[in-house]
Amino acid sequence: MTIETAKAAAEAEIRALVDNWLRAVRAQDIDGIVSHYAPDILAFDAIAELQFKGKEAYRKHWASCLSMCPGPMTFEIHDLKIAAADDVAFSHCLNWCGGTAENGEEKASWMRMTAGYRKTNGKWRVVHEHFSSPFDMESGKALFDLKP
Amino acid sequence: MTIETAKAAAEAEIRALVDNWLRAVRAQDIDGIVSHYAPDILAFDAIAELQFKGKEAYRKHWASCLSMCPGPMTFEIHDLKIAAADDVAFSHCLNWCGGTAENGEEKASWMRMTAGYRKTNGKWRVVHEHFSSPFDMESGKALFDLKP
Repeated sequence: MTIETAKAAAEAEIRALVDNWLRAVRAQDIDGIVSHYAPDILAFDAIAELQFKGKEAYRKHWASCLSMCPGPMTFEIHDLKIAAADDVAFSHCLNWCGGTAENGEEKASWMRMTAGYRKTNGKWRVVHEHFSSPFDMESGKALFDLKP
Repeated sequence: MTIETAKAAAEAEIRALVDNWLRAVRAQDIDGIVSHYAPDILAFDAIAELQFKGKEAYRKHWASCLSMCPGPMTFEIHDLKIAAADDVAFSHCLNWCGGTAENGEEKASWMRMTAGYRKTNGKWRVVHEHFSSPFDMESGKALFDLKP
């Protein structure tokens, strides 16, 4: 296998991992979501805390986030770019995400996501995740109306 | 060179790149800052816009950010972790950053940073940068008082 073929294979593996993870997020399947994470994942989420250290802490946070969205959830990935080599990879993309308000109205906004991956014992795992919204310098408020 | 030696060498190269970039940020040296970026860098900054596409757009944004901090600038990196393999790498860390108010008081807060790197023609470049502050779900405001 040439280096280029190996890279293309690694990239395809990451893409499959992202697809599976995304299916789990949309299904609000917490076990499915965290099954993609390394035990020592370090996560920077968009809300609440500076960081979440380890799969258990991040799982609890995911559970709390999912409980805020009892209705149908919107979670799309756009402009996904993946860089992979040997056993290290990263990706970035935009997310169109939100939920359904009590009046049935969809409320969603554009966010950003970066992830880092490592391959251990032949299996890729997410070791780092970073979600965010930019904020406005004047008001200190998150900017939910920005468009790509 | 074994794979492990190559990985350690790549990690040391990324660490040196981060050190150089950090020196340029602290010196408010815009040419030094952007010299570490790939022409097609895609950046998710903490403020103002969803994304900045390409070195020129991101340079303009850096220039506008630096003009907001005319006095001495605080920019520290903590808990830097690097994963590197062959020609792909990523890193994440916490930043203690801020500036000096007109009354001489330091105003700083903890932020998060993730970066992606590629090695091209023997030289590592930043191809992706993601800075952020988490926000509060209730108020929509960025959380500047969180501590690691």
